[in-house]
Amino acid sequence: MEQIVECVANFSEGRRTEVVGEFVAAISSTDGVAVLGRESDVDHNRSVVSFAGEPAAVVEAAFAGIRVAAALIDMGSHTGQHPRIGAADVVPFVPLHNVSMDDCVRLARELGARVGKELQIPVFLYGEAALRDKYRRLADIRRGGYERLRECIELSDERRPDFGPRFLGSAGACAIGARDILIAFNVYLSTDDVAVARRIARAVRESSGGLPHLMALGLLVKGSAQVSMNLSNYRITSIHHAVEAVRQEAHSLGVAVEGSELIGLTPKAALAATAASYVQIDNFSLDRVLEIQLARHFGLDVE
Amino acid sequence: MEQIVECVANFSEGRRTEVVGEFVAAISSTDGVAVLGRESDVDHNRSVVSFAGEPAAVVEAAFAGIRVAAALIDMGSHTGQHPRIGAADVVPFVPLHNVSMDDCVRLARELGARVGKELQIPVFLYGEAALRDKYRRLADIRRGGYERLRECIELSDERRPDFGPRFLGSAGACAIGARDILIAFNVYLSTDDVAVARRIARAVRESSGGLPHLMALGLLVKGSAQVSMNLSNYRITSIHHAVEAVRQEAHSLGVAVEGSELIGLTPKAALAATAASYVQIDNFSLDRVLEIQLARHFGLDVE
Repeated sequence: MEQIVECVANFSEGRRTEVVGEFVAAISSTDGVAVLGRESDVDHNRSVVSFAGEPAAVVEAAFAGIRVAAALIDMGSHTGQHPRIGAADVVPFVPLHNVSMDDCVRLARELGARVGKELQIPVFLYGEAALRDKYRRLADIRRGGYERLRECIELSDERRPDFGPRFLGSAGACAIGARDILIAFNVYLSTDDVAVARRIARAVRESSGGLPHLMALGLLVKGSAQVSMNLSNYRITSIHHAVEAVRQEAHSLGVAVEGSELIGLTPKAALAATAASYVQIDNFSLDRVLEIQLARHFGLDVE
Repeated sequence: MEQIVECVANFSEGRRTEVVGEFVAAISSTDGVAVLGRESDVDHNRSVVSFAGEPAAVVEAAFAGIRVAAALIDMGSHTGQHPRIGAADVVPFVPLHNVSMDDCVRLARELGARVGKELQIPVFLYGEAALRDKYRRLADIRRGGYERLRECIELSDERRPDFGPRFLGSAGACAIGARDILIAFNVYLSTDDVAVARRIARAVRESSGGLPHLMALGLLVKGSAQVSMNLSNYRITSIHHAVEAVRQEAHSLGVAVEGSELIGLTPKAALAATAASYVQIDNFSLDRVLEIQLARHFGLDVE
């Protein structure tokens, strides 16, 4: 039976469209891989490419994307709002269909070994693929960014990579991992005071006592304060929980939510639950979604 | 290529579970038909059964359901909040997959002729299947309910049925039609004053100057005032538009929305748009829904 794995590759380039075009083409031209979504952010100076297919094809496409990004992006001159350590900054595998998390861990380690050896890029394994507990969290790998990592990768045993050289070149390092589906979205506030966004991020994120499975950062993007969030388990903390928490904190600080944006793809269950919460639907279940019933009974996808 | 049509049959019985069980069984035991959803409401004294399959099978199942309901439900003793004219009250066909609206019109007229002749039940064709313009709207067929129709079906040329006898027996009459996908949902208010629900319904519905493609009634259900709504074109007026309009009217009358319920099935696009509106997502499109991308690229349904 067909296996489908997703890869959500984050690259440190969101401004030079010709460079973005090159690593996207490297991925999309790989046989058996479909690009499901892509977007570039000028302020973050960052692009996210979501692609999927059979495991071997997806690993091949990821390697091709990393190779091209490493050749075209110079981390020494990269600037942007988002924390990052390398040209191909973060490359997670996500199990979608007939693929286990263990399979994804294996793919991450296989790709990591190859990137370390063939491209001579330091690789940190993270998430479910981490070999060291303290590197499970991406934030711990990226702390201080490219600049800090360059200083201490040779000196500190703690910051030794899992694969590749103990030396940071212009392509920087790469975090490769395995994780479950994650929802990434950003909320814009009615202020340009980044301190407000940071304060809200601290209040809502799990690591400082907020909502479980919610990561949040305060940034300044497009001239507005932005709370940039990742939901690592939308079944527990979904979009509406996060937005309500941000709205409440924002309100108490005298600012408003002006809009939000999704990054990459979102499972329909999260959207449906969010809609149900908003409309206060008491009797909601996915059984009420027409297309889910049609797929179940007739194997049919009706858009 | 497979054709799939949906039928959403409304029956005037929501209290006697053994009777409901009988007409549901008549439908679900028809070869080639899948029941996608069903629900019964005690206050409305009404059940809705959604089923789908190949056109011929769905017509057969609809006929079987109408036959059983007509035999077991006595409209002379029926009471309930919802407007109704017969045991099998409303039976629309909805095109879902490789089926046109014209096909559904043809199915409705075919079933109508058969119900009129074989079951001797007066049939009014409505919606896209209507033969007379003034019967396109269900509300115009049901005005005054079973009781009023019984008085004037013989006398008034206006109320002559399209098929069947000009006489109302204990099974009443049946409105059979063709329509596009419709979203039915009810909003409960923090009051037991049905006049408030009626006032809100008048303010929000199209027929009295409210939102396009929105029908609304004020009812008293489960001891609460309820605004019962149908959205006949969710692409123009979706769930969130309707709920926001009701909330606003409710607020101006000093009452709140306490909850809501969906009846039958809802297309995922309506839920996704509602979620996007709630979270104020500026860059939303269905391309961002993971499962839609997987279906598009891999023909895969992942729940």
